Amino acid sequence: MPRPLPTADALADRLLAGDRRTLARAITLVESTRADHRAVAETLLEKVMPETGRSLRVGLSGVPGVGKSTFIEAFGRHVTEAAHNLAVLAVDPSSKRSGGSILGDKTRMEELARNPRAFIRPSPAGETLGGVARRTRETLLLCEAAGFDVILVETVGVGQSETAVADMTDLFVLMLLPGGGDELQGLKKGIVELADMILVNKADGELERAARRSAAEYHGALNLLSHGPGDGWRVPVKTCSAATGAGIPEAWSLMERFREQAVESGTFDRRRAEQARSWLREELAAGLIQALREDPELGRDLPDIERQVMARERPATVAARDLVDAFLRRRRGA
Amino acid sequence: MPRPLPTADALADRLLAGDRRTLARAITLVESTRADHRAVAETLLEKVMPETGRSLRVGLSGVPGVGKSTFIEAFGRHVTEAAHNLAVLAVDPSSKRSGGSILGDKTRMEELARNPRAFIRPSPAGETLGGVARRTRETLLLCEAAGFDVILVETVGVGQSETAVADMTDLFVLMLLPGGGDELQGLKKGIVELADMILVNKADGELERAARRSAAEYHGALNLLSHGPGDGWRVPVKTCSAATGAGIPEAWSLMERFREQAVESGTFDRRRAEQARSWLREELAAGLIQALREDPELGRDLPDIERQVMARERPATVAARDLVDAFLRRRRGA
Repeated sequence: MPRPLPTADALADRLLAGDRRTLARAITLVESTRADHRAVAETLLEKVMPETGRSLRVGLSGVPGVGKSTFIEAFGRHVTEAAHNLAVLAVDPSSKRSGGSILGDKTRMEELARNPRAFIRPSPAGETLGGVARRTRETLLLCEAAGFDVILVETVGVGQSETAVADMTDLFVLMLLPGGGDELQGLKKGIVELADMILVNKADGELERAARRSAAEYHGALNLLSHGPGDGWRVPVKTCSAATGAGIPEAWSLMERFREQAVESGTFDRRRAEQARSWLREELAAGLIQALREDPELGRDLPDIERQVMARERPATVAARDLVDAFLRRRRGA
Repeated sequence: MPRPLPTADALADRLLAGDRRTLARAITLVESTRADHRAVAETLLEKVMPETGRSLRVGLSGVPGVGKSTFIEAFGRHVTEAAHNLAVLAVDPSSKRSGGSILGDKTRMEELARNPRAFIRPSPAGETLGGVARRTRETLLLCEAAGFDVILVETVGVGQSETAVADMTDLFVLMLLPGGGDELQGLKKGIVELADMILVNKADGELERAARRSAAEYHGALNLLSHGPGDGWRVPVKTCSAATGAGIPEAWSLMERFREQAVESGTFDRRRAEQARSWLREELAAGLIQALREDPELGRDLPDIERQVMARERPATVAARDLVDAFLRRRRGA
């Protein structure tokens, strides 16, 4: 028998007290498509908003095989030992097709899954990128309300999810393998320039020298081609070994330094306010287009109009104006 | 006394015959905010759509001082001598503030302005980036209908207009100065990775050796960090001198090669179809949000709601859903 739906008030109290099971349940409500779940989730979010925002949100990207899970285990051990509470989320809109979320299997991070200061949540499955991003942003707020002060949002560097993750985090970390840049071929164009920090992983054993050489090369190339967020931050390129733990404390120190510098320069708050504004704009656009799609007549015409625009039979401006006009007329007439 | 407004039919005939004055007039209608102008412009665009699309659309970006105007003069001379018709447009949403469009002064390109195979149109002034981009996309279609088969869209690499220009062109060229990468500091993050081709300008006289060295360095750095559009295109880095004309024919040959390869691999058509689809989506979103803004009650509340979301008082999803619901209700009730 399904449990009765708790009230938003009851959930809020237990969530703010840091209760894990409540957090897990609240995220399930946020991810649900049922109207009654969604209503409770939204009331809950409104209630806990004042207790959100007090975390460092870290985006982490890198191609499959670069060692993100092992890194998160080692990183998680380090920051929780320093009395931080770590939440690990994932954005992976491809998880449905590929048959499993990148974090779906908690056994990938066995130690962290048992750590009382850590919380791991797999990517919501079977969604568009927009849907996954929306739910992850809301989950992030719930984790903050539950007292998690470091939140890692993981993604694989092969899709469009990187921009979405960079848009919801304070600091974007790109993880690379030792090597001549070949593995960058697997990365989507533009990802390197999103990075606020680059870590060359697997700097241990036989690969240690190769990792250092790669880091130096990337550093040189970035110095020539790239540039920081505009407040004097030079993108650091460091080596680490998720397997031995080498370089992990240094990576965390760098993240803390990034935050200090960004808070001091005002970039931190400005970036968050801009992220919130563009999130609102995206949600408005998605909501309105959804309403148009759900209009019985216009929703039926839309695929054909899209095809006409793609086939260069109609200019997009004209097609869009016609659709918006018809939408407003029908709303008025209905 | 203002001239009477011509009909879309009359304009279409003269435009398709390649008449310059008609092209200039049609662009003025496209750029106009008057409803009667806009109506003629849209009918005209619909009429000429079947005759559009047969050009190579080239985006050109680089910081002020890199020599874009001189390059366009030399490039224009070369391609028009090869019997191409060249149109030069600009996207510069900052032109209002800076007191003058980057192409506002045709005397910057004196020779090209008198070339019967060339057409230069300054950036529409006093607009948001969205407005400028929309008008430039429509102007691009008008130029194609008038028989221009090479269209250069210029922009300065300091704002957000680069993404907009990359989204409306087939090939994005980034122009750099000889030097150690310092001038890249003036470029917005992410622009280097947009480039399909890099030209190091001012490779003449004393700077020639420095330009060659820079090109080699950029080439190395790009090989390490960047990667092509996915069909095997390696971003070439070449030197040129807009002043002496050296390297200009080679740059044009590369552009032709890029087109050939992209057409053959299917990237060319796919990219254009995707651009058209995302243009439609942007126009729909902008049109619907505009309608919401123009609603007397909701338009009044919107700035306050935006402030609340930016101040983290309300989650963006919830605020957006409330707004969309209220919008639909009011439409229904009105």
